Amino acid sequence: MGPLNGLKVLDLTRVLAGPYCTMLLGDLGAEIIKIEVPVKGDDSRHFGPYQHGESAYFMSLNRNKKSVTLNLKTEKGKEILKSFIKQVDVIVENFRPGTMEKLGLGYDVLKEINPAIIYAAASGFGHTGPYSKRPAYDGVVQAMGGIMSITGQEGGEPTRVGPSIGDIGAGLFTAIGVLAALNHRNETGVGQKVDVAMLDCQVAMLENAIARYVVTGSVPKPSGNKHASIVPFEPFHTSDSQIVVAVGNDQIWKRFCQVADLEDIMALEKFATNPERHNHYQELRPKIAEKMKEKTTKEWQKILDDAGVPNGPINHIDEVLEDAQVKARDMIIEVEHPKAGKLKMPGVAIKLSETPGEIHSPAPILGEHSSEMLKKFLNYTDEEIEALHAEGVL
Amino acid sequence: MGPLNGLKVLDLTRVLAGPYCTMLLGDLGAEIIKIEVPVKGDDSRHFGPYQHGESAYFMSLNRNKKSVTLNLKTEKGKEILKSFIKQVDVIVENFRPGTMEKLGLGYDVLKEINPAIIYAAASGFGHTGPYSKRPAYDGVVQAMGGIMSITGQEGGEPTRVGPSIGDIGAGLFTAIGVLAALNHRNETGVGQKVDVAMLDCQVAMLENAIARYVVTGSVPKPSGNKHASIVPFEPFHTSDSQIVVAVGNDQIWKRFCQVADLEDIMALEKFATNPERHNHYQELRPKIAEKMKEKTTKEWQKILDDAGVPNGPINHIDEVLEDAQVKARDMIIEVEHPKAGKLKMPGVAIKLSETPGEIHSPAPILGEHSSEMLKKFLNYTDEEIEALHAEGVL
Repeated sequence: MGPLNGLKVLDLTRVLAGPYCTMLLGDLGAEIIKIEVPVKGDDSRHFGPYQHGESAYFMSLNRNKKSVTLNLKTEKGKEILKSFIKQVDVIVENFRPGTMEKLGLGYDVLKEINPAIIYAAASGFGHTGPYSKRPAYDGVVQAMGGIMSITGQEGGEPTRVGPSIGDIGAGLFTAIGVLAALNHRNETGVGQKVDVAMLDCQVAMLENAIARYVVTGSVPKPSGNKHASIVPFEPFHTSDSQIVVAVGNDQIWKRFCQVADLEDIMALEKFATNPERHNHYQELRPKIAEKMKEKTTKEWQKILDDAGVPNGPINHIDEVLEDAQVKARDMIIEVEHPKAGKLKMPGVAIKLSETPGEIHSPAPILGEHSSEMLKKFLNYTDEEIEALHAEGVL
Repeated sequence: MGPLNGLKVLDLTRVLAGPYCTMLLGDLGAEIIKIEVPVKGDDSRHFGPYQHGESAYFMSLNRNKKSVTLNLKTEKGKEILKSFIKQVDVIVENFRPGTMEKLGLGYDVLKEINPAIIYAAASGFGHTGPYSKRPAYDGVVQAMGGIMSITGQEGGEPTRVGPSIGDIGAGLFTAIGVLAALNHRNETGVGQKVDVAMLDCQVAMLENAIARYVVTGSVPKPSGNKHASIVPFEPFHTSDSQIVVAVGNDQIWKRFCQVADLEDIMALEKFATNPERHNHYQELRPKIAEKMKEKTTKEWQKILDDAGVPNGPINHIDEVLEDAQVKARDMIIEVEHPKAGKLKMPGVAIKLSETPGEIHSPAPILGEHSSEMLKKFLNYTDEEIEALHAEGVL
């Protein structure tokens, strides 16, 4: 039971940005009918690593979806797609702009068939503008959008964000666009096109970097791991890993000094207030850093938690999976796949009191639901479906 | 005219995660009534840099909103808030869990007043679990959620993502939760609580890192700026900056070699296919790197664009603002503020064909709309409002 129960989404997406969007909608209860090219399927079915022959990458992004194979280059394939359009509320695609038009399946065509359809397109550069038709890759969009230029160690190279934030950002914004358009449709009955560009989303996620630049004229650079104005507020090496210590105010500073055996420096005026600590950062940091090396991260966590000093370890992925809060919030779930067996993946980050989303099924086998969906939505018979298989349409 | 026109949102948020969420809703047409503490207002009004005394940080995040001051620690302030609750569709807050309950304004109280209310809470660790009541900071959540452990130069230190992705991620997920709950309410009339944690969102944004770890048992590390399996697909230094070259397949490789004056290596079998280039990366990279240094980034862009070789400069923020595609998509807009003057900020990343969002007003002056909103929604008179001011309620 999710808040989008009853919503039918035709999902033509592949790889990451689009599938991430439809996963969000599916987690919240929408029925996701994933259209895949016959034989090969979504490209990401062939991305490693594999578990019992199934792509873990694909399985993590395509839970809760139904797979229907359809060759959109055949006339019958196009016909079937158009028949589906009459039956669904939303279509999502992340082809390069122009691809759907070339297939004769652009928004202008589909809205004639169903004026209430919400047509969402996630692309690299969007459906307008001079770069529109270019292929996009996460690595290119992260570079062009400015996020790399402000990520990295202080004085170091611009750095790519580890997860593909170009794709994931676009997936999130596209989901918001679909749901906002759905609200408008609920009130007016009219659908529309939702055009989301990975590059645009990068710009929309730059936070205060633009404000800083336009006001000061100074171009933001990678600024490392420490807070711009609060001291200490950064990671320190412990005896076994690293921990972020976040001393948000002067009361916390005192508590921190007491439990970290730094009472000698607590007594010094030059470190008593945050502005003073900021001014004397170069002198202060090594003194703290030396102390922090004396204990393990787990020991420090206990000490700082008990003293009410905000802190957090730099968790590696194995540690994230074992984090008490992550576990308590069901943010790592295990899904059983008929071929691959059990696979751990992220849970649903939106916790709803009345209609919590759920993971009701694993990622589909290619074409697993072709027959079921063609019968349910389009009243095809077994014989007709068999013939479509034989012709290579499914 | 946006897809959320008519939606009324009571906005108790401060600083970043919450205000980012309500900005998204406001950009799409919702009426955002921002409740601020009298005299001081949203903390971020005091974050630099300033333009004519107004915080550019605050102005970038609070366009399209109306400001009402309200002292929630007074009985009259609580009463007014409860009266607003009867009139609005959504309330969003990003206090530390427990704060609203302490004020006597928790979800359980507010839903008695308006059972259709959608109550969205964005917090650091969420409203359940052992760390729930802890304060959260972006730097702590990025550390704990694993994103830092997979961001950084190869072999280098875990690296914080430049923009506050902990806050912004939570803002995006919260907006999705609100809109999904709205769909459920449109169908059933029933509201609900939306509980989003910054930490949960970090986990949900880790992309394939979890799949890689659980299948291979190998803990992902910072992997620098190059693609994991495609070569070349990474930034190269040019004579003046850096450019990402993304050679997605062997045809593109040939075109790249032709225009980059690398025909000697194109002829070599050891670089002919992507697997071969991957195997001989250490030998190949310096050869390409040497060539790339011979021209400026702009010269390379022209050459590679003409040859159909995907590429993109590592844009700094000043260059992002001048990018032809960013400009063509209206992703940098200029908003005129009555005190601060003109300020550039990101535009609306969701492009809708029928009901495009818009920036209809600058960020409000503190309390600018107190009187207007109290009259419009609650039928207060000028005299009553004056008295509330005098009592310190507004």
